[in-house]
Amino acid sequence: MNEIDRLIQLLAKLPGLGPRSARRAVLHLFKRRESLLQPLVQTLAEAADTVRICSNCGNLDTTDPCAICADSRRDPTRLCVVEDVADLWAIERSAAFKGRYHVLGGTLSALEGTGPEELRIEALVARVERERIAEAILALSATVEGQTTAHYLADRLGQSGVEVTRLAQGVPLGGELDYLDEGTLTAALAARRPVGR
Amino acid sequence: MNEIDRLIQLLAKLPGLGPRSARRAVLHLFKRRESLLQPLVQTLAEAADTVRICSNCGNLDTTDPCAICADSRRDPTRLCVVEDVADLWAIERSAAFKGRYHVLGGTLSALEGTGPEELRIEALVARVERERIAEAILALSATVEGQTTAHYLADRLGQSGVEVTRLAQGVPLGGELDYLDEGTLTAALAARRPVGR
Repeated sequence: MNEIDRLIQLLAKLPGLGPRSARRAVLHLFKRRESLLQPLVQTLAEAADTVRICSNCGNLDTTDPCAICADSRRDPTRLCVVEDVADLWAIERSAAFKGRYHVLGGTLSALEGTGPEELRIEALVARVERERIAEAILALSATVEGQTTAHYLADRLGQSGVEVTRLAQGVPLGGELDYLDEGTLTAALAARRPVGR
Repeated sequence: MNEIDRLIQLLAKLPGLGPRSARRAVLHLFKRRESLLQPLVQTLAEAADTVRICSNCGNLDTTDPCAICADSRRDPTRLCVVEDVADLWAIERSAAFKGRYHVLGGTLSALEGTGPEELRIEALVARVERERIAEAILALSATVEGQTTAHYLADRLGQSGVEVTRLAQGVPLGGELDYLDEGTLTAALAARRPVGR
């Protein structure tokens, strides 16, 4: 097997790419040697060298602690707990949160055998006490695993006196009512709010 | 912009990937440093160093001439003319052709301003004479550009006495008749063949 085949095989392992799109991607790369292949070779090698997991919050960055943990302008008393770095990035894109993060690294799952010790939960409890966190926002998925994890965390953190909140559930922006599931409608009705004037 | 953002930006330029799937791919890579990221860094660098365009046929390979051009067991009198390396790979996967290839590098297109001099056409004419090719199979797309190019090539090659053929048009395997366009049905009817006993 030569380098072309090995490259296709490796790219095909990325999420969203299969053998067919990996072949297309490789041809695309060799057609754009200067503008794409060479920069990718260099950037990938640099990223592999420099990107690490933040020992404080679990984020990925080129520095440890990460830029968010090191940013003194961010509110040190609010901690947003997420499952994954992808969720952290999503919240950062919203620019709606100016505190810090804690990445769990997954959710509790009996099915997949993920217990509390597999996640960054002890570190979270320790941080909440050490950093005197006032509010822990559980920004977990509205799935069974996400909500199980949220309950477990609320229980664990309840003893430390921190205020534990979670994301609101309701109608997503642009969501059409007759496409929404009953669970979301029930939650949105139960959490209805007075219309401001 | 740090290495993570640059990596996402570069991966998002690959066909089939957008910003969202590029972010997912990057997170996937950093979760599989040993099994995926490191091999990819190495293979990509090796491929960028070693893969070149075959000066004879236009194929991509780690050797020049490529393995197909250098393979003396392949029929040197039959030449399959394709638009792109992707088409060459597709025909190789079928294992139905044991001759050699000539990659044009595209099709004639008035719209995109691709004239004969942009494609590997002079080299094709020269090869056909020099290598005493008996048959040139035009394996071009059944699109307007593909067929325009086929006509042009048939014209150019007609003077050299080589037999010029093209792929059969008809019902694709697994194709359902009522989903086929009229053009394909017309072609398949016109080229109908007696049922062998």
